[in-house]
Amino acid sequence: MSSDSTVGNGDCLAWAARDSSGLLSPFKFSRRALRSDDVSIKITHCGVCYADVIWTRNKNGDTMYPVVPGHEIAGIVKAVGSSVQRFKVGDHIGVGTYVNSCRECDYCKDRQEVCCEKEPVYTFSGIDVDGTVTQGGYSNYIVVHERYCYRIPDGYPLASAAPLLCAGITVYSPMIRHKMNQPGKSLGVVGLGGLGHMAVKFGKAFGLKVIIFSTSISKKQEALDVLGADIFVLSSDQQQMKGLAKSVDFIIDTASGEHSFDEYMSLLKTAGVLVLVGFPKEIKLNPGSLILGRKTITGSGVGGTKDAQEMIDFCAANKIYPNIEVIPIQYANEALERLIKKDVKYRFVIDIENSLK
Amino acid sequence: MSSDSTVGNGDCLAWAARDSSGLLSPFKFSRRALRSDDVSIKITHCGVCYADVIWTRNKNGDTMYPVVPGHEIAGIVKAVGSSVQRFKVGDHIGVGTYVNSCRECDYCKDRQEVCCEKEPVYTFSGIDVDGTVTQGGYSNYIVVHERYCYRIPDGYPLASAAPLLCAGITVYSPMIRHKMNQPGKSLGVVGLGGLGHMAVKFGKAFGLKVIIFSTSISKKQEALDVLGADIFVLSSDQQQMKGLAKSVDFIIDTASGEHSFDEYMSLLKTAGVLVLVGFPKEIKLNPGSLILGRKTITGSGVGGTKDAQEMIDFCAANKIYPNIEVIPIQYANEALERLIKKDVKYRFVIDIENSLK
Repeated sequence: MSSDSTVGNGDCLAWAARDSSGLLSPFKFSRRALRSDDVSIKITHCGVCYADVIWTRNKNGDTMYPVVPGHEIAGIVKAVGSSVQRFKVGDHIGVGTYVNSCRECDYCKDRQEVCCEKEPVYTFSGIDVDGTVTQGGYSNYIVVHERYCYRIPDGYPLASAAPLLCAGITVYSPMIRHKMNQPGKSLGVVGLGGLGHMAVKFGKAFGLKVIIFSTSISKKQEALDVLGADIFVLSSDQQQMKGLAKSVDFIIDTASGEHSFDEYMSLLKTAGVLVLVGFPKEIKLNPGSLILGRKTITGSGVGGTKDAQEMIDFCAANKIYPNIEVIPIQYANEALERLIKKDVKYRFVIDIENSLK
Repeated sequence: MSSDSTVGNGDCLAWAARDSSGLLSPFKFSRRALRSDDVSIKITHCGVCYADVIWTRNKNGDTMYPVVPGHEIAGIVKAVGSSVQRFKVGDHIGVGTYVNSCRECDYCKDRQEVCCEKEPVYTFSGIDVDGTVTQGGYSNYIVVHERYCYRIPDGYPLASAAPLLCAGITVYSPMIRHKMNQPGKSLGVVGLGGLGHMAVKFGKAFGLKVIIFSTSISKKQEALDVLGADIFVLSSDQQQMKGLAKSVDFIIDTASGEHSFDEYMSLLKTAGVLVLVGFPKEIKLNPGSLILGRKTITGSGVGGTKDAQEMIDFCAANKIYPNIEVIPIQYANEALERLIKKDVKYRFVIDIENSLK
């Protein structure tokens, strides 16, 4: 469907994938004209999320090409619509994984828009309520309704802010919801990538005992010395795993590779909870892993706008910064390849401002 | 280990299985002498639970033969120890699935003894703290510490009380814990056997909209007319299943046969919970079934002594009675065979008092 808001001068510079090869290359398109509730944002940085791999390569079969990926967006306000209250030109601002929702259902009213009963409109490869296909943050500007934008506090680096908008909120939101922020409790973190390393940082900020479960021993020293985890467990080490039986209050599972859920459930105390935020192919469980000890496995994806702003403010107040590798847009294809190989500590962030011209 | 409490005169009449054929036949053995905290109970009735099949046939590989099954025990107090406070001779009394626990851990202190950190001592084929092997309720009396006994209110039939002690508490406890007792909410019940039919009764007593999911259409009319369920769904009816997508607040899953968990998760509303109380071979789930809509699958087994007494009192106050088929002990082998074939509405109860002599 075409509408006047999609007509434009093609002034948005971006990198897009054209087909399921996922190969990104320069692309020009039009953003919608500014509406009264909209903020126009000069994008300075965009984080590289595994979702960018999934949709540029059409892994879910629902990609609409050309697709401009990117949903960890940070930048500077360059224009605001006449009704916009929360932002003014020059403010530092962020946009996450969704840019619209019904705003009427119970979840939207509660600012848990990610659970919108009509589903939120995703930041890229989504269809907005006006029928236009959304395009993401591997681009030099974006126009978004102010409700789906976040204040980035002064002094918080925009490059560091970007990964908070997906990796950060994805682990923060379930940690808060499941009371994983009670000092003295123990937190297991499965997988030490973009999400996992943020879970470790939040866990330490909340005063938890943090145990990292990883498949690669090469991450051990840095996990303990730099990230400040209390215990590093090589998940293939049966003896170390068994030694932790019934000792962990919560586990946040960020791993997308195949792994044994029964094994992790056995590490939980009675009434313990495993929160799944990664996307493995399948979950297999013995019923006894849940029934004996009343254990729970639950899922979570990003969070609502209220949680997300709270999380950003928490990071600024507690000086929590993602560990990032800043790259130019020209490196994006190689970055996606390295992400697939888990060769990143711990998040790529594209320096849009200085490389996309 | 032998202790003086195991020495006796062999005056306890029972039916026991001698080997993994599971065939039950008459057996005599000794109960321990009454201790100061003990109650000696003349057993009048014992429910027939699927656990009786599992342990008489050594399905879990941990059965100690001879085994006297039965952990839904109702009867009359025939003697009390010198310190017993809650019971006197002639009282109606029940015993459930466990007869001891450490009494010192946080869970025991909270009267959630089923979660005892040292594990509760099960009513049969369990090893008590004095080293003796426990024997269950297919017998004419039992000696149990008063803490693990329940008051059966006057006027509540002892035959009806028996199934409450396992089937009843197994569904009541998670329903309360997961707030499934809020009027107006919708409850799905998967499987319509001993546990499922009690979940329906509790659901209606709590003011819920109750949807039964069953594999056998033959149960439909009775489920609606007699049990009072609001909707009966034949779980193989794809169209009816899809029509219920995202409409159910809670599901209590009592089914032990193989079934699709993704399908049931899709029926839950956002943040919905499926409580597993049955024992299928394996749970398989697509991660999206949990992540999209923040859904939860959790397990539960029976309940603590506080919950169990509350549940019995609730049943008495609300005139909730299990639907039972009363049988003589001589029918026990056939009853177990019929239980395997799901040919019972909805619980066999052995009339111990009148048939075991």
